[in-house]
Amino acid sequence: MKSDKQHIENSDEYLGLHVNNGVVQPPSVNPYLKKKKHRILSVDDYVQGILQGNISILSQAVTLVESTRPEDHNKAQEVIEKCLPHATNSIRIGITGVPGAGKSTFIDAFGMHLVENGHKLAVLAIDPSSERSKGSILGDKTRMEGLSVAENAFIRPSPSAGSLGGVARKTRETIVLCEAAGFDTIIVETVGVGQSETAVHSMVDFFLLIQLAGTGDELQGIKRGIMEMADGIAINKADGNNVEKANVAKVQFQNALHLFPMPESQFLPKVLTCSAYEKTGIADIWNMVEEYIAFTKANEYFDYKRQCQSKYWMYESINEQLQNHFYQNEKIEQLLKEYETMLLNDKISSFVAAKKLLDIYFGQ
Amino acid sequence: MKSDKQHIENSDEYLGLHVNNGVVQPPSVNPYLKKKKHRILSVDDYVQGILQGNISILSQAVTLVESTRPEDHNKAQEVIEKCLPHATNSIRIGITGVPGAGKSTFIDAFGMHLVENGHKLAVLAIDPSSERSKGSILGDKTRMEGLSVAENAFIRPSPSAGSLGGVARKTRETIVLCEAAGFDTIIVETVGVGQSETAVHSMVDFFLLIQLAGTGDELQGIKRGIMEMADGIAINKADGNNVEKANVAKVQFQNALHLFPMPESQFLPKVLTCSAYEKTGIADIWNMVEEYIAFTKANEYFDYKRQCQSKYWMYESINEQLQNHFYQNEKIEQLLKEYETMLLNDKISSFVAAKKLLDIYFGQ
Repeated sequence: MKSDKQHIENSDEYLGLHVNNGVVQPPSVNPYLKKKKHRILSVDDYVQGILQGNISILSQAVTLVESTRPEDHNKAQEVIEKCLPHATNSIRIGITGVPGAGKSTFIDAFGMHLVENGHKLAVLAIDPSSERSKGSILGDKTRMEGLSVAENAFIRPSPSAGSLGGVARKTRETIVLCEAAGFDTIIVETVGVGQSETAVHSMVDFFLLIQLAGTGDELQGIKRGIMEMADGIAINKADGNNVEKANVAKVQFQNALHLFPMPESQFLPKVLTCSAYEKTGIADIWNMVEEYIAFTKANEYFDYKRQCQSKYWMYESINEQLQNHFYQNEKIEQLLKEYETMLLNDKISSFVAAKKLLDIYFGQ
Repeated sequence: MKSDKQHIENSDEYLGLHVNNGVVQPPSVNPYLKKKKHRILSVDDYVQGILQGNISILSQAVTLVESTRPEDHNKAQEVIEKCLPHATNSIRIGITGVPGAGKSTFIDAFGMHLVENGHKLAVLAIDPSSERSKGSILGDKTRMEGLSVAENAFIRPSPSAGSLGGVARKTRETIVLCEAAGFDTIIVETVGVGQSETAVHSMVDFFLLIQLAGTGDELQGIKRGIMEMADGIAINKADGNNVEKANVAKVQFQNALHLFPMPESQFLPKVLTCSAYEKTGIADIWNMVEEYIAFTKANEYFDYKRQCQSKYWMYESINEQLQNHFYQNEKIEQLLKEYETMLLNDKISSFVAAKKLLDIYFGQ
């Protein structure tokens, strides 16, 4: 995969999309549609609108970021770069949990608590899976009854289909735009079943795991390793007959966390119970987040982590594209299956197979 | 980094090492040293010797695998490829634990139990850190009093310095040689403090974590995530005054493991106590390993995992070398620091920085 810039310069690769390159073409959409006016926003229009907190322009800018058209891509990058210096003083919270843990209801209650206390909240999501039914992240706005109509809340569903790397990039860039637009708290929601937690964990300051009482089937869906990523655990649905069970689970999780080494932040993760349905325990969870932020700002872990995350995404992005370039190489694509078969039949070692494929790639 | 084959063909890159390429050179070692005869072993000599279980030739073959000379590298690959079909029916066990957990003493007791029961055991190690003092893996043979003189045991310390990828490759290849030489049980030891656990975990059938009683400082050294990789946990030093504490720890770990999702193997990890010093509980740990092997062979996870591991190492090796080729590129090396600085000063986004560096790399 060549970079997008090269793509544009070398438009032949776009299979005729640019045959009229240089000639101004009429838009292919109905020119009488009101939406047409969105197309003519300049980079500065976007930036100015965002910095003024104009939600409509922010939304359009996010659409630009999510666009797969290369010309949109470059414009989006310019907008982001101009917004970067203004994207400061926010708190980014990642929220995960298996389907059924009540994430959406929790985010609604938690988010309402925030906006009622004067915060401006953006709720984003990462769900690169096509199997939407599994998680249905932000899919059902009715689950966020309060936030969906709250003035100081901006809800944006996961960018649709694409590689995890692509979806993560778009969400990370959307965070920058939201922050520049004055949103001081960003929530990124994900489902605790795939690779997306690592991505979310690598773009937030605080990572909250929503759990349920009980050690049975409910927990089987969550990915190994997620518990150790959590800066805090909230045991949801601690209401009605469930209160006792939730308290037992709280002790169990607390004991388990003690067996883990101290996190790099030096903040021992807490386990709290709450009921998003009854709106109890919600303030305590926000207090825990604030305590964590104050603690890590004091010991400078907060800034250190943000800098590590910036570097992480640069290297991650480089490595992903190096791999794409290799694995999407026509000859490599042809040979890969062949080498895998030899490998699985003990005809070749893993390292010799790798070496031979690399010789072909670099020898081209 | 170009592949080794290319290196040889293009000997200029070797800074004069090959100025006399094609001319037979006298060996640079004292020709009267007995070791000289090792140099003349052919690929077939190696393979034959290994298949006959000749320990001296096996040792030399491992030295060949560990050699950094490109001509040795190619010869080693030929030997490995010929040994691959004979490297079957073994059990590979990874053992980790923080320094102080008594790994060496444990391996000695555990290994003696194996050889006394008719097994042929090879003990290898991965410790890519230069800070040897931290772990001193297999460094002190006196800690393996029994095994170091046992007839059916082959002990080989970690390949010395190198990247984790390089060290892991060498160890993985050494496993193949040992198995072809008739060793039916392979132990790979590592220290639970770095990235090397993932490497070891990806080359063994069973991953054993050695822990100590207590939840205090002893545990702080272990890396997050390791507990979730374990197929079994052995709480060592369950002797003297420690027995009660070890039993408490056993229950704690067992409870904690119940909070994790079921591993892919469908084998719920067990927690056992033992004393390597008093040689108690050792047989139970071996029984657990055997139970796991029987269980995963029955549900076909055993073969599935081995195949995944073969593929993992091929892809890992490809990705590592793609990255080396990029990051060792002269121009990229020069620019990387510059872009990192811009990144950390919010002058550029992670993704634009990555894109610009890739444009330069692929545009060369």
